[in-house]
Amino acid sequence: MRDLKLLSVMVQAFAVSTVKVSRGLGFNLKVKKDAIVPGVKSESASAAALIGVIGEDFKGSVTLLINKKAFDYIIKAMSGGMIQSPSTDDPVSMSALGELANMICGSALQELGKSYSKHVDITPPQMFAGENLKSIPSESEDMKYYTIPLLGEAEGAKLYLVLGFR
Amino acid sequence: MRDLKLLSVMVQAFAVSTVKVSRGLGFNLKVKKDAIVPGVKSESASAAALIGVIGEDFKGSVTLLINKKAFDYIIKAMSGGMIQSPSTDDPVSMSALGELANMICGSALQELGKSYSKHVDITPPQMFAGENLKSIPSESEDMKYYTIPLLGEAEGAKLYLVLGFR
Repeated sequence: MRDLKLLSVMVQAFAVSTVKVSRGLGFNLKVKKDAIVPGVKSESASAAALIGVIGEDFKGSVTLLINKKAFDYIIKAMSGGMIQSPSTDDPVSMSALGELANMICGSALQELGKSYSKHVDITPPQMFAGENLKSIPSESEDMKYYTIPLLGEAEGAKLYLVLGFR
Repeated sequence: MRDLKLLSVMVQAFAVSTVKVSRGLGFNLKVKKDAIVPGVKSESASAAALIGVIGEDFKGSVTLLINKKAFDYIIKAMSGGMIQSPSTDDPVSMSALGELANMICGSALQELGKSYSKHVDITPPQMFAGENLKSIPSESEDMKYYTIPLLGEAEGAKLYLVLGFR
């Protein structure tokens, strides 16, 4: 990713979109604005949803990492209370997480479209579950990473959006 | 993914390429041919490298999931013995895993190119580490998954290639 200005516009678009999408779905995520940092800096998570992004000038991925408290909080909210005990092993709960990542990505690319008119394509979300789950950056010098930390309203609910592009 | 014939050609291309690439890198991975199955069927892993794939007729991802024994075996071999104690928290070891996924993907798409002439684009690999790491399929009906189980020569070294496309 040579165009660092474009990357910072993307980070901004993803931060704004996450707040907007969560509000639309009936829950609140707050961006810890002063904690947005270059690189991968997240606490360990319980689940992740990754979306591949390919534009004409960049290629990479956006990963939503989420701890168990945030997972429970969000999946209960997204299912309108239908899922009372969300499990990271359950494809239904995890598909909801993927759909959240998908909506954030769609909204962010729409936002990005205001200043970047070229075509951008995305993959369907791929979900992971595990303990102590971490995104590990590549050593490759042309890969640039940004981490956007987010807080849910539930006590201890933490999420991270990790953007990695070259 | 409507074209199930194309998907089976892809599965074949990835199976062949994994064997070919590993041999070129100086180690041996064997495909458990009779165990290639639709869906996501893997034992829990310690690390993963995911590559997003976007073709004109399909979008999805290829994930290489690997247990700790296979990780140690492969990273030692790929580093020519330079890395004696590979760690899934170490970006250098994990970048090697990403590079392996990248080479398998590149080789498979070259193989696929023999029967599929349209353009296919891929993202750089994104790596994950964790305990009890699992790929969780989407509930979406248009997503099709295939798991290719692989064995390393070291005792208990297990890997899985999970293809997920729509």
